[in-house]
Amino acid sequence: MLLAAPLTDPDIRMPMFSAAEYDHRLASVREKMDRQGLSALIVTDPANIFYLTGYDAWSFYTPQMLYVPARGEMLMFLRDMDAQGAFRTSWLPEEQILGYPEQYVHQPHIHPFDWVATALRRRGLVAPAAKGCVGLEMDSHFFAPKAYRALVNAIPEWTLVDSFELVNWVRVVKSDAEIQYMRTAARVTTASMHAAIEAVEPGTAQNRVASRIAAAQAEGDGEIWGDFPAIVPMLPTGRSADTPHLTWSDRVLREGDAMVVELAGVHRRYHVPLARTVMLGAPPSDLLLLEEAVAVGLQAVLDVTAAGVPVREMSRVWNLTLARYGLEKPSRLGYSIGIGYPPDWGERTVSIRPDEESMLSENMTLHLICGMWMTGYGYEVSESIRVTGTGVETFTSFPRQLVRK
Amino acid sequence: MLLAAPLTDPDIRMPMFSAAEYDHRLASVREKMDRQGLSALIVTDPANIFYLTGYDAWSFYTPQMLYVPARGEMLMFLRDMDAQGAFRTSWLPEEQILGYPEQYVHQPHIHPFDWVATALRRRGLVAPAAKGCVGLEMDSHFFAPKAYRALVNAIPEWTLVDSFELVNWVRVVKSDAEIQYMRTAARVTTASMHAAIEAVEPGTAQNRVASRIAAAQAEGDGEIWGDFPAIVPMLPTGRSADTPHLTWSDRVLREGDAMVVELAGVHRRYHVPLARTVMLGAPPSDLLLLEEAVAVGLQAVLDVTAAGVPVREMSRVWNLTLARYGLEKPSRLGYSIGIGYPPDWGERTVSIRPDEESMLSENMTLHLICGMWMTGYGYEVSESIRVTGTGVETFTSFPRQLVRK
Repeated sequence: MLLAAPLTDPDIRMPMFSAAEYDHRLASVREKMDRQGLSALIVTDPANIFYLTGYDAWSFYTPQMLYVPARGEMLMFLRDMDAQGAFRTSWLPEEQILGYPEQYVHQPHIHPFDWVATALRRRGLVAPAAKGCVGLEMDSHFFAPKAYRALVNAIPEWTLVDSFELVNWVRVVKSDAEIQYMRTAARVTTASMHAAIEAVEPGTAQNRVASRIAAAQAEGDGEIWGDFPAIVPMLPTGRSADTPHLTWSDRVLREGDAMVVELAGVHRRYHVPLARTVMLGAPPSDLLLLEEAVAVGLQAVLDVTAAGVPVREMSRVWNLTLARYGLEKPSRLGYSIGIGYPPDWGERTVSIRPDEESMLSENMTLHLICGMWMTGYGYEVSESIRVTGTGVETFTSFPRQLVRK
Repeated sequence: MLLAAPLTDPDIRMPMFSAAEYDHRLASVREKMDRQGLSALIVTDPANIFYLTGYDAWSFYTPQMLYVPARGEMLMFLRDMDAQGAFRTSWLPEEQILGYPEQYVHQPHIHPFDWVATALRRRGLVAPAAKGCVGLEMDSHFFAPKAYRALVNAIPEWTLVDSFELVNWVRVVKSDAEIQYMRTAARVTTASMHAAIEAVEPGTAQNRVASRIAAAQAEGDGEIWGDFPAIVPMLPTGRSADTPHLTWSDRVLREGDAMVVELAGVHRRYHVPLARTVMLGAPPSDLLLLEEAVAVGLQAVLDVTAAGVPVREMSRVWNLTLARYGLEKPSRLGYSIGIGYPPDWGERTVSIRPDEESMLSENMTLHLICGMWMTGYGYEVSESIRVTGTGVETFTSFPRQLVRK
């Protein structure tokens, strides 16, 4: 199919990274596989599949997997109609992309992975992988228990074990090329936050603010095109700002309302999230206290952040500052970011909290989300950062204060 | 918390349906549970939780569940920060909404359902449910194998079985009130499709078209506000129109390009999807053939559609018409629609294909997606319909032809 297409086909995307970078990613994954005793790894998280193959499509609502053996070629299994177009975004050779037949979709008695298991067996790949354990992404959003049970039943030779976010942990430290994509995404973030702040006015409905943000997120910034975000704009407003994940309605903004805006700018699946709180009218004293505490706390966190520092140190400094203001935040202060697919732009690896065991490394990228969800009101300010050898780079540059309108 | 809020709190949403309707839904679920021998059902699909409780938030990226015992009160388990705000959208009494502590989120060694299992045990709910089987949504997007294993390990008394989309099948036939929401959503669909068609011009980039659609989807239509869609706009373009699920880039439209637009208008989670194909310039003969075949085939399908007809009859008539044009479509012709959360607006129940066993009933709602993905080109036209006693109601009224620009 690749050969039949004209050389100038505008609908084949250039690989985002060099062959050397993709090789390095796979080598890093295999190194971890070796340490965890895995003879093969089954990757189902669309962000991990994208990371290893470049494959990018809204096809993850039906089962798909990337089979990564310790040695030999990777194989990607998709629904037939998706396999047909995968060469347009993935660098994988056509013969490594296999489509399962349509009749396996949404059936009570059969599962696409029944077909996949047979395909692996026919290719002689079951026996070699039976010599070690086979890793599964047991906590991946698009790997259902039915898919898991299909593998358990179809390949009894395999000892199936949790890979414990193996690929996600490889993703934690970004390459320079990835950092460049995130800096580019940050331009979309900035444009989208400006659009949001401009739209927040008394008399405007939440859904209109969402509309302006969504438009800016896809439009991007000049020659930088915007990709879809893994999470829709979150707009906690008024009394409902005490909880973070309610979505919008036609609730009209009024003088005296505070509205949180949490959004991400995205470029080619790389996310840079950002939150600010917009105040219509005079801020109440409770909010002013949060504004000061969060600004001081966030600065204190940024001051201690650098490669070689334990992640929990960020949490300790943050909690210490909050305590001085008589405040506390039960939820984590942030998490690792990068590639994102719905429903989450977090990587499900590093969490900034007191019991975190990981250390900061250069080119880790984190979203520090200072979300204070009180009772009947709330406040959010965030920064997306890159950890450097000596400190941090912030991807955007909005003042860390309440936006007064 | 509900009592402490002012009576005029604009951030508490009115229930979308009457108490009688919610009671009826629960009774229908319990009737099916009884027939399947279930003493309890664990609901994890956010669309099913919304259907039974009204709870609506972008919180489904961390584990959540609705516990539905054969007798007694339902219990909803959410992350603490989400449980705090659930009363704003759900009619469930506060004491039936329980938050699990933050430290259970994204950990390798513990899972939120460990906490949930203990909470159920302490409330004396484990033993009563051990008298029958406990149903699980084994194919739900946000119920991972890790969550399943947590339940298996924590509650060995229970015989856990697949519920086989039990709640989804209750959702298949809509109430009159639900149909009204879908007619309302259809206004958003129409506005969004007009925005799309207007935006498609030579020289315009795909992401700008996506931007215009996204803005229209949230803006809605006059006093009808737009909710977020479960799937972003799909814009198969040019040669890539031979596959349905690639997402946009800054690929620029040119004279001679055909662009498929597949989108949904959404109001309060109810979806009405629609697809049309826009041709820039003179259509090639291959596309004209598809245009005619699809229009004739779709009309033939609508002509046979009515309550009491087997679903597979729709598929038979469609395939027969295509065959007359020397064409075939390996994928299903459509599926049931209604409530949707990312990543899918389909209900995962009725599929229009030759081996489907279900019958059409009044107030079933279906998306007939005539997607013809050829090699190097493609064509889509769709209709969202309501099945009536004697025929169909189409939710929108765009001509079923290639849009020529």
